[in-house]
Amino acid sequence: MNKGLLIVVSGPAGSGKGTVNGKLLESDAYAFSVSATTRAPRPGEVDGVNYHYVTREDFERRIRAKEMLEYTEYCGNYYGTPLRETLEALNAGKNMILEIEVEGALNVKRVYPEAVLIMLLPPSFAVQEARLRGRATETEEKILERLERTRAELPELSHYDYVVYNYDGGADTCADDIRAIVRAERCAVRRHRTAAAEYFETH
Amino acid sequence: MNKGLLIVVSGPAGSGKGTVNGKLLESDAYAFSVSATTRAPRPGEVDGVNYHYVTREDFERRIRAKEMLEYTEYCGNYYGTPLRETLEALNAGKNMILEIEVEGALNVKRVYPEAVLIMLLPPSFAVQEARLRGRATETEEKILERLERTRAELPELSHYDYVVYNYDGGADTCADDIRAIVRAERCAVRRHRTAAAEYFETH
Repeated sequence: MNKGLLIVVSGPAGSGKGTVNGKLLESDAYAFSVSATTRAPRPGEVDGVNYHYVTREDFERRIRAKEMLEYTEYCGNYYGTPLRETLEALNAGKNMILEIEVEGALNVKRVYPEAVLIMLLPPSFAVQEARLRGRATETEEKILERLERTRAELPELSHYDYVVYNYDGGADTCADDIRAIVRAERCAVRRHRTAAAEYFETH
Repeated sequence: MNKGLLIVVSGPAGSGKGTVNGKLLESDAYAFSVSATTRAPRPGEVDGVNYHYVTREDFERRIRAKEMLEYTEYCGNYYGTPLRETLEALNAGKNMILEIEVEGALNVKRVYPEAVLIMLLPPSFAVQEARLRGRATETEEKILERLERTRAELPELSHYDYVVYNYDGGADTCADDIRAIVRAERCAVRRHRTAAAEYFETH
């Protein structure tokens, strides 16, 4: 059984990362990491499915014990990726998808350099803005906040491995791009450091 | 029109690279580079199809003028890849396949760092040997020479980008691997150095 790949997918609001990742998860070869959080479950949310709901004390103990692959604090609550669960799924051959933002993604790469960082982007900032304005649900304040965040984060793209553009209606193409990236990464020589020696030893 | 990728495929005798490359060439997106050589055409070979047949004087002039992407001398004849033709095809959006051995491949990477170096391998040295012995056409001397060459060249695998294993009957899988590699490479951030800036400029 080959180890799975840790795939970090980031993307600004309007990039469609939820839809694209949903398509990848249709296959058994991919799994989604369930995050831990200190925020209270909302009606309908299930512990262990939407999140692992833990106390603030427990979360901070996990951070100190280095049991979190990455974590962030947002609006007074912690959110993070449990390390052991993720490693177990990788060892079982699953390609694990982490849908996290830029800061968390770069932290994952530091802790687990074999991770593949993929940035999903709308075709352009202009298209992103049009998509956000097209969502009747968003307030102007929220839209501007999200666009501002994209401006601040996008220079970090240079630390990512791949960039995938999501054109209108292009979620299937994006999922195919990510599947190709995973297939190619499995062939990368830097993931087969002992290949030359093994070639002569295997019978 | 996006530029094509320069794809160097190497592989020892018995790796099946001819078959795999043949499958890639079934698509218009891929083209094979026609080498230049100073050896005489064999019966049935066509100038400009099998090779560009040139004089020794002309070949050496091309080397001095840096008109060859790579070249080698073998059994008293020069063989090499014309630079201009290759660049023109890449600019026309074709993915160019060069089927060359290790030394030439590493030279290509030096001259054209955007090249993607792929090593196609039998599953193991033992399988390679069995495949060569299974070919009734090969003399024992030739077989030993080829195996010796593999022993000498394989340590250079570490300078390649990808390794693809050709299991028995696996040529289609290998062609799919290479297509995935090409698709992934097109998304590689290092090939999109200005992506973050362009994102805000494009309308």
